[in-house]
Amino acid sequence: MGETGQLRAYFMGIDTHEEAVVYMRSDCDICRAEGFTANTRLQIRAGDRTIIATLNIVGQSVLPAGAIGFSDSAWRYLQLRDQQAVRVRHAPLVQSLSALRKKINGAELSPQEITAIIGDIGKRLYSDIEIASFLTACAGGRLNLAEITALTRAMVASGNRLQWPKCGRVFDKHCIGGLPGNRTSPIVIAIASAAGLVIPKTSSRAITSPAGTADTMEVLTQVDLSLEQMRSAVTSTGACLAAGGRVGLSPTDDLLIRIERALELDSEGQLVASVLSKKIAAGSNHVLIDLPVGPSAKLRDRSQAERLSRLFCGVAESLQVEIRCVITDGSQAIGYGIGPQEEARDVLAVLRNCADAPADLAERSLYLAAQLLSMASGEADSHCREQAREILSSGRAWQQFRRICEAQGGLKPLGRAHYQSQLRARRDGRLLSMDNRRLAQLAKLAGAPSSPEAGLRLRIKVGEAVVAGQPLATLLAETPGELAYAEDYYRQNPDLFELGEKP
Amino acid sequence: MGETGQLRAYFMGIDTHEEAVVYMRSDCDICRAEGFTANTRLQIRAGDRTIIATLNIVGQSVLPAGAIGFSDSAWRYLQLRDQQAVRVRHAPLVQSLSALRKKINGAELSPQEITAIIGDIGKRLYSDIEIASFLTACAGGRLNLAEITALTRAMVASGNRLQWPKCGRVFDKHCIGGLPGNRTSPIVIAIASAAGLVIPKTSSRAITSPAGTADTMEVLTQVDLSLEQMRSAVTSTGACLAAGGRVGLSPTDDLLIRIERALELDSEGQLVASVLSKKIAAGSNHVLIDLPVGPSAKLRDRSQAERLSRLFCGVAESLQVEIRCVITDGSQAIGYGIGPQEEARDVLAVLRNCADAPADLAERSLYLAAQLLSMASGEADSHCREQAREILSSGRAWQQFRRICEAQGGLKPLGRAHYQSQLRARRDGRLLSMDNRRLAQLAKLAGAPSSPEAGLRLRIKVGEAVVAGQPLATLLAETPGELAYAEDYYRQNPDLFELGEKP
Repeated sequence: MGETGQLRAYFMGIDTHEEAVVYMRSDCDICRAEGFTANTRLQIRAGDRTIIATLNIVGQSVLPAGAIGFSDSAWRYLQLRDQQAVRVRHAPLVQSLSALRKKINGAELSPQEITAIIGDIGKRLYSDIEIASFLTACAGGRLNLAEITALTRAMVASGNRLQWPKCGRVFDKHCIGGLPGNRTSPIVIAIASAAGLVIPKTSSRAITSPAGTADTMEVLTQVDLSLEQMRSAVTSTGACLAAGGRVGLSPTDDLLIRIERALELDSEGQLVASVLSKKIAAGSNHVLIDLPVGPSAKLRDRSQAERLSRLFCGVAESLQVEIRCVITDGSQAIGYGIGPQEEARDVLAVLRNCADAPADLAERSLYLAAQLLSMASGEADSHCREQAREILSSGRAWQQFRRICEAQGGLKPLGRAHYQSQLRARRDGRLLSMDNRRLAQLAKLAGAPSSPEAGLRLRIKVGEAVVAGQPLATLLAETPGELAYAEDYYRQNPDLFELGEKP
Repeated sequence: MGETGQLRAYFMGIDTHEEAVVYMRSDCDICRAEGFTANTRLQIRAGDRTIIATLNIVGQSVLPAGAIGFSDSAWRYLQLRDQQAVRVRHAPLVQSLSALRKKINGAELSPQEITAIIGDIGKRLYSDIEIASFLTACAGGRLNLAEITALTRAMVASGNRLQWPKCGRVFDKHCIGGLPGNRTSPIVIAIASAAGLVIPKTSSRAITSPAGTADTMEVLTQVDLSLEQMRSAVTSTGACLAAGGRVGLSPTDDLLIRIERALELDSEGQLVASVLSKKIAAGSNHVLIDLPVGPSAKLRDRSQAERLSRLFCGVAESLQVEIRCVITDGSQAIGYGIGPQEEARDVLAVLRNCADAPADLAERSLYLAAQLLSMASGEADSHCREQAREILSSGRAWQQFRRICEAQGGLKPLGRAHYQSQLRARRDGRLLSMDNRRLAQLAKLAGAPSSPEAGLRLRIKVGEAVVAGQPLATLLAETPGELAYAEDYYRQNPDLFELGEKP
């Protein structure tokens, strides 16, 4: 079928997030000639750009005759001008959906099939429910090593790929998360690059957690760097701490992550492909992976961590990346702050060697930095640990961190949240444990990470004693509604902090 | 947290299909106080009705200050009046989503967990992507017999349940589909009820096919009956041929089917639960299931059919329903018509004993009617076959069918499609096979079932000979765009009809 008559583009002023939506009148000739109804998937062509969008049907009062309305994201993607002529037709059948159905039925997919699926998702040919179905079909350990390798390759190929031709060995580190407050990256990158390693770190924003490294770094400096800004920072300092989004590294991963976040799904195969595709696209060839294990961390036991570690190593080997996976203690939140700004506060305290800096965050960062130094030099871990400690305690790490922030547009001062309240102990006792998942949930209900000031500040760590009425944590929010919502959640989950008898 | 301030309801005139969407201004106090952003899930309360909806953020020109806009389906569900005061808050955490995540990870769900999921879907607490994830997690044989039984029970409990206290044994029949044109139900129900069986048939509209029995019957009479109209038809004639939607039998199934249709997913466990929940809710206790097998039917081979048959029998036994599953030939489309009106044309030809009535549709209907008669009387199949044949050939079935249609509001005349074109043979030859799936796709592209006149009429059956240029089928559409789209598909799929050498 040829394309149909033209319509004039109209900005609706409706933000539907990333899902592309178009609006047409029920009495529109084209709707009637083509048999379009609500939720029909349409292909819209504007100049040389094309998008697949979901149709909403509107009444005559909503749009002028001969017009087609666009949601914000569809308008941006097509780079439209007001009243621009566009052409509309039924969306073509998406061939790779047959591979998706094969996967739903439990079959192994070939690299070609996986490449086709990722290519079509990247071209925005999948609806949100189709992406949700793909993620679900691949979750629960249903991707084998060959499939995860193919997925990683396809995701790297979907976007830009950085080259560091003069650098030779290029390093990176990644923590798989699940541990609130565990913001080691800014400290580790500062130490490692101060020691001379090239480490162009790109981080994602939070997926299911109250803060990602990109969210935290955004409190301190500019992170949405262009490719050129990123290159310039790495050339002048050996490192950067940028958000991955704008530079277009593994962009299809971002489309998947949006749905994973809405489903609160974080599956093994997608995780490995997501992490390694970002690192490879950023040009890294030496990668350190931190796998925290604890009863309420993302990884519940050592065997889960070992399984994930094998997947990381298997995929990295196929893609010629040197990798080291370390399994670490994930029994409680790290530092005191949870949420972008409060985690940034902890990072600064460690880098500045403040007396009240959280010791656990400092020690964890030194351990990971030493691992990177040992990957680079081949020296013993103990030697590298001393080297890392010297760089931190001498102030060289803090100096290097400031250089990185200056190269990214300058270091910003911290602010304060507008609303706060105390979560108090209901009895005397010693803190036996805290529930990482529910702490993360609490910080998210308070508004983290979309409000960077929101989250919480712990006032006590496991093993310490409190008396009834003493604050266990301070809740921070930017709106009274969110503060009340988080307080409500704490009232319903008093066992989030487990208090036992004093010894 | 208590509920927040009020907003005034505003009808947007935007049809988003079943997904509930609300629209709020970005500068709205409540958005800012509560931290609502695009795609936030909200709970809206209006009087004593509550819904969960997805938020779209709009500019100031779209809505007046203090207003909240509603999509058509959300407006209807809340039964709103213009400017009615509503209250808005963050959607509560949906507890059953943890059971969904358990299923994604491959665990068996308890009956309680399945009941909770179906209950929450019924209360419209799940977003479309969450429903898509649930359906995918359950597909590919990932529900065992106990889970399908629990799913069936939960779906029955989600809606109304008909009682036929004076009837004792109540019959029903169902074909699992996948065979275009296989419209036996109207004929079988007419024969069986003419023989005295009580058979209150409710049918669904098409899921992935170009017509369901409800779509076909709607061409001939009214099918959206109220509970009272359905009771009255069954009381006066012993039968009805109604659409299931309006009477609220297993309504959660309809919410699932909407997403299954969009994903073109039709999984075993959902299929069994969907069929049996509708039958049980309709008050049937004796059910005949037709399982057609063929290389391009829904069931590809006998072992698949036997597996499905075992699931049907296992679930039916747990729920005290007598069942008979028959495995039938599904090698080619039945009759000549594909699409609601063309299938109705075939049904009428068989019932009226017309000379050009499709023999395969007649024989299939007689076979199935005989199975029902034998379930009722315990007599041998051959005896029942003769009894069915006598009812059809004597005109009693046609008379009974007209009585049923009269009881449902009268028999309507058939119409004609506005646009048609011929699909012609490219060479001389004998028809070796036709591809059921692609024939169905062709009829759907032509507009079936949403345009009941659309579809196609076969001009040849397997085994017959044609010469080059002779029509193989007539394509029927209500719009030129759809006709062109279907023609285009046929050009790309010339092997849809497989022509071989003449013998």
